[in-house]
Amino acid sequence: YEYFEKELLSYRTLPAETPDGHRLILRGNVELPIEVDQVREQGAEGIGLYRSEFLFFGRLTPPDEEEQYQAYRQLIESVAPHEVTIRTLDVGGDKFVPDINLADEANPALGLRGVRFSLADRSLFKTQLRAILRASVHGPVRVMFPMVSGVAEVRGCRAMLEEAKDELKSEGLLFDDRLAAGIMVETPAAAFIADQLAEEVDFFSVGTNDLVQYCLAVDRGNEHVAYLYEPLHPAILRALRMVCEAGRRAGISVAMCGEMASESLYLPILLGLGFTELSMNAPCIPRVKRIVRQVRRSEAEELLAAALEMKTATEVAAFLEQEMASRFPGIYGTTNI
Amino acid sequence: YEYFEKELLSYRTLPAETPDGHRLILRGNVELPIEVDQVREQGAEGIGLYRSEFLFFGRLTPPDEEEQYQAYRQLIESVAPHEVTIRTLDVGGDKFVPDINLADEANPALGLRGVRFSLADRSLFKTQLRAILRASVHGPVRVMFPMVSGVAEVRGCRAMLEEAKDELKSEGLLFDDRLAAGIMVETPAAAFIADQLAEEVDFFSVGTNDLVQYCLAVDRGNEHVAYLYEPLHPAILRALRMVCEAGRRAGISVAMCGEMASESLYLPILLGLGFTELSMNAPCIPRVKRIVRQVRRSEAEELLAAALEMKTATEVAAFLEQEMASRFPGIYGTTNI
Ligand SMILES: [Mg+2]
Ligand SMILES: [Mg+2]
Repeated sequence: YEYFEKELLSYRTLPAETPDGHRLILRGNVELPIEVDQVREQGAEGIGLYRSEFLFFGRLTPPDEEEQYQAYRQLIESVAPHEVTIRTLDVGGDKFVPDINLADEANPALGLRGVRFSLADRSLFKTQLRAILRASVHGPVRVMFPMVSGVAEVRGCRAMLEEAKDELKSEGLLFDDRLAAGIMVETPAAAFIADQLAEEVDFFSVGTNDLVQYCLAVDRGNEHVAYLYEPLHPAILRALRMVCEAGRRAGISVAMCGEMASESLYLPILLGLGFTELSMNAPCIPRVKRIVRQVRRSEAEELLAAALEMKTATEVAAFLEQEMASRFPGIYGTTNI
Repeated sequence: YEYFEKELLSYRTLPAETPDGHRLILRGNVELPIEVDQVREQGAEGIGLYRSEFLFFGRLTPPDEEEQYQAYRQLIESVAPHEVTIRTLDVGGDKFVPDINLADEANPALGLRGVRFSLADRSLFKTQLRAILRASVHGPVRVMFPMVSGVAEVRGCRAMLEEAKDELKSEGLLFDDRLAAGIMVETPAAAFIADQLAEEVDFFSVGTNDLVQYCLAVDRGNEHVAYLYEPLHPAILRALRMVCEAGRRAGISVAMCGEMASESLYLPILLGLGFTELSMNAPCIPRVKRIVRQVRRSEAEELLAAALEMKTATEVAAFLEQEMASRFPGIYGTTNI
């Protein structure tokens, strides 16, 4: 076991590249400030998902622009030269907004959250965008909008971003005018219109936890139906393919930042689909990198093609388990999956 | 106004056929027994959605096989020679099942409902299937499974149906061995894998209320986000196209039984997509028939093609409103939409 840990450690400084030259970027997901150190230690190339909710939790008033600016600046500087992707507020932050009360939502997962909330409370949203823009002069950063279901919302978000830029300009405050803006792809609608959305944004990041949940209409926190939450479901594979193809055609990067990104068994599928970035809890990175460095992209594409012909997640999982165990017994021995 | 009512009445006996010969079947949705009479009076060609929940509501024990058999038999005989589509129980019927308690579901819309519940409580399900099978000797009937998200579930339902048939056979009870079995297409997953599902079932019926809700991740009963519930959203048009094409290729009929089926503005889209059946509240049927008899299928296909190029529901709606008002001022005057 100790040997295994040591072997994994040796991967930290190596690039995440398949034997046939497909280069992936592996990044960390960060919720708490303490996780930023782990991202560096585990050899991540930046942060693919910074959950900004942390700044808003456990307090009576939302953080003002200056406080957010300082937090983002510190984050960006500590991760530079690598890039940070800051996701804008992804909760129903109604406790800061007296006019909005979300306690009575019968299905909160289908309610006012993510950009829906941000577009409903524009002052909270504007403050966050201004803070991110101001921090953007201190290192590489991107902004990402959660829970997008249509082109109109993306345009609404981008309009807010332009408004924030105009304000900063007129106030003489500095920002990076080329700040990249992307979206989480996590509603089925976003997958269905991925080609249209790809023309409106600078990057995609697939949030598989929600995408799977909405596609299959399954709350995975519900014990009665959790068995139906299957990331290898044929519908999910098709949705992911649609998103990756749209991204490739539009020439934008396509990341995955859901838990699916760090599962050994799913990696050949993600490699086959052509994801260019995977973001995960930092401690998973060395293990994922070790697999990436051994599985050829061409091989992953073959496995994906076979999986796409199958009709159930069970069948896909059994196929992948068997194939990977026989091709890579060292990695996919029964104990390591 | 009275004249308008009379004119509509005259449509009751005419077939629902476009001027260029595309024949639609218009059917009624039925929740309460009293609505069965309306179905006949409004010239519906049968019942496209019989919600069997009514039999289960407001009582302490579920109806037994005999009671269900009598109810289905009466229903079928009163609608014959037209066909009835009976949807199996589409609630979390946990009050009849001591082992299952659904009161704590955080998001009931993503919980144990439809076939999920039926497959979790097989005795309740089996009883209903036996009753429907026994009633099938009394007139044309189909069975329909709600909330399907994958091939495995369909196979589970069909296996139950076969089990029920075997039981009836060995008991010497009569049933129609060719009873058609179809599914509601109402989860995004079902749309993504419509081609695979089409090989497993005898017909599709699209439940747009839920399909729209899950695709867009919007609870339309939630006042904060109801504005996002848009049946003309580009993602919905694409999902519907996927389902209709899969149905056509497999040679099975594709119905729609959500509220979208009776909206005048949406009809050219549904005609263009090639739906073969629309099921709705019976009083809507004459109005819908009047439109179907005036809009050419070829014209509807042109409108659909144009709509599929658009990026927002607002744009699609404005386009349809303008086109239909100028092409059919008599029907699509501002007061009749
Ligand atoms: Mg999410
Ligand atoms: Mg439904």
